[in-house]
Amino acid sequence: MQLYELCGEDRERRFSPYTWRIRLALAHKGLAFETCPTRFTEIPAILGGGQTSVPVLVDGEAIVRDSFAIAEYLEETYPDRPALFGGDGGRRLSRFVESWVTGTLHPQIVGLVVADIHAILSEADKTYFRQSREGWFKGVTLEEKQAGREERLPAFQASLDPLRAHLKRAAFMGGEAPLFADFILAGTLTWPMKVSDLELFEPGDPVLDWYRRVMAINGGRP
Amino acid sequence: MQLYELCGEDRERRFSPYTWRIRLALAHKGLAFETCPTRFTEIPAILGGGQTSVPVLVDGEAIVRDSFAIAEYLEETYPDRPALFGGDGGRRLSRFVESWVTGTLHPQIVGLVVADIHAILSEADKTYFRQSREGWFKGVTLEEKQAGREERLPAFQASLDPLRAHLKRAAFMGGEAPLFADFILAGTLTWPMKVSDLELFEPGDPVLDWYRRVMAINGGRP
Repeated sequence: MQLYELCGEDRERRFSPYTWRIRLALAHKGLAFETCPTRFTEIPAILGGGQTSVPVLVDGEAIVRDSFAIAEYLEETYPDRPALFGGDGGRRLSRFVESWVTGTLHPQIVGLVVADIHAILSEADKTYFRQSREGWFKGVTLEEKQAGREERLPAFQASLDPLRAHLKRAAFMGGEAPLFADFILAGTLTWPMKVSDLELFEPGDPVLDWYRRVMAINGGRP
Repeated sequence: MQLYELCGEDRERRFSPYTWRIRLALAHKGLAFETCPTRFTEIPAILGGGQTSVPVLVDGEAIVRDSFAIAEYLEETYPDRPALFGGDGGRRLSRFVESWVTGTLHPQIVGLVVADIHAILSEADKTYFRQSREGWFKGVTLEEKQAGREERLPAFQASLDPLRAHLKRAAFMGGEAPLFADFILAGTLTWPMKVSDLELFEPGDPVLDWYRRVMAINGGRP
């Protein structure tokens, strides 16, 4: 298997939340893969062209795009390995978790680290990233978007209250073992951690303990 | 089947969030039941004694307590009816949804309607409720707890953002059809609506559209 993953100027710096969801899913299922670190501006050229985003997973003849679709593919193709969804209900509720994470946490994370993301990109990617993101932000610069982030950190931390409530009685969102829902959120938290020195959480926050438990699946590798 | 449900002075006013979860689960599975409206102070006497909370479901020989345990019982006992969990992963992620709802929404709802709850209780229940809750609140009265609730309403509404994000692409938390996760949240929202005239949401909020879709399962009955 080959996994095409977003990277910074340093190809070892893989920071995409969506790709991390799949790294963790592959580790959970015990499936080895070769990494293909890819910069933003290199995506159109991979696999002979036609790709617009990563992750892309190549498994023999199969080429699968989109992190949720890749998780579905892995669950269907390798059903005897540890579960990512644990049935159709789990698959559907994972979509709810994905909506929560991507819909409410991602916009906040962008406001916390978007200029830091820019800083770790290659020159060509920097140009692409600034232009596309400042277009999304309707002319607000990356630096303006990130300014004053310390004031917004408490609200971001409070967004994780549903997880804190759950961790009072379970080790993982999936109960005693993690499910893809755990990897969705852990992948998203890895994203700012990979690009920024900003401390997202206070020491001792149960969210951090949960995060370490999930990342242990990846052999503790950051 | 018999369902013991919490009620106000008016036995038709059934307001327990936990019981509503089960009313909706029974309707979803197409299972008829006889309601046994029970006031707080009547709970110790039901079923020959020994009960400390409702809902309690009686199904032939089986007596099942605790809303989540009842849902698990129904899913196991009536597997050919529409699914509540859709497999073990769905059951486990429903616990995460339950933690979110009970852990983060319930304390806020208490602050919005706790004096309104008191107002609809029988005289004996009023005494019990004030004493027990003001004990939990360490001496803060029910009226003090509820005072200034309009200021806290925006934060409560914002707590539903994960659902709003999800509703952009799915009709229910369970996807195209509701699952017990939907009933957990809908049951909780029914609770303040049954005891208070407070408008929890702005007209046109997608949360209200979702709520109506879920309650339609109950034949639209309030």
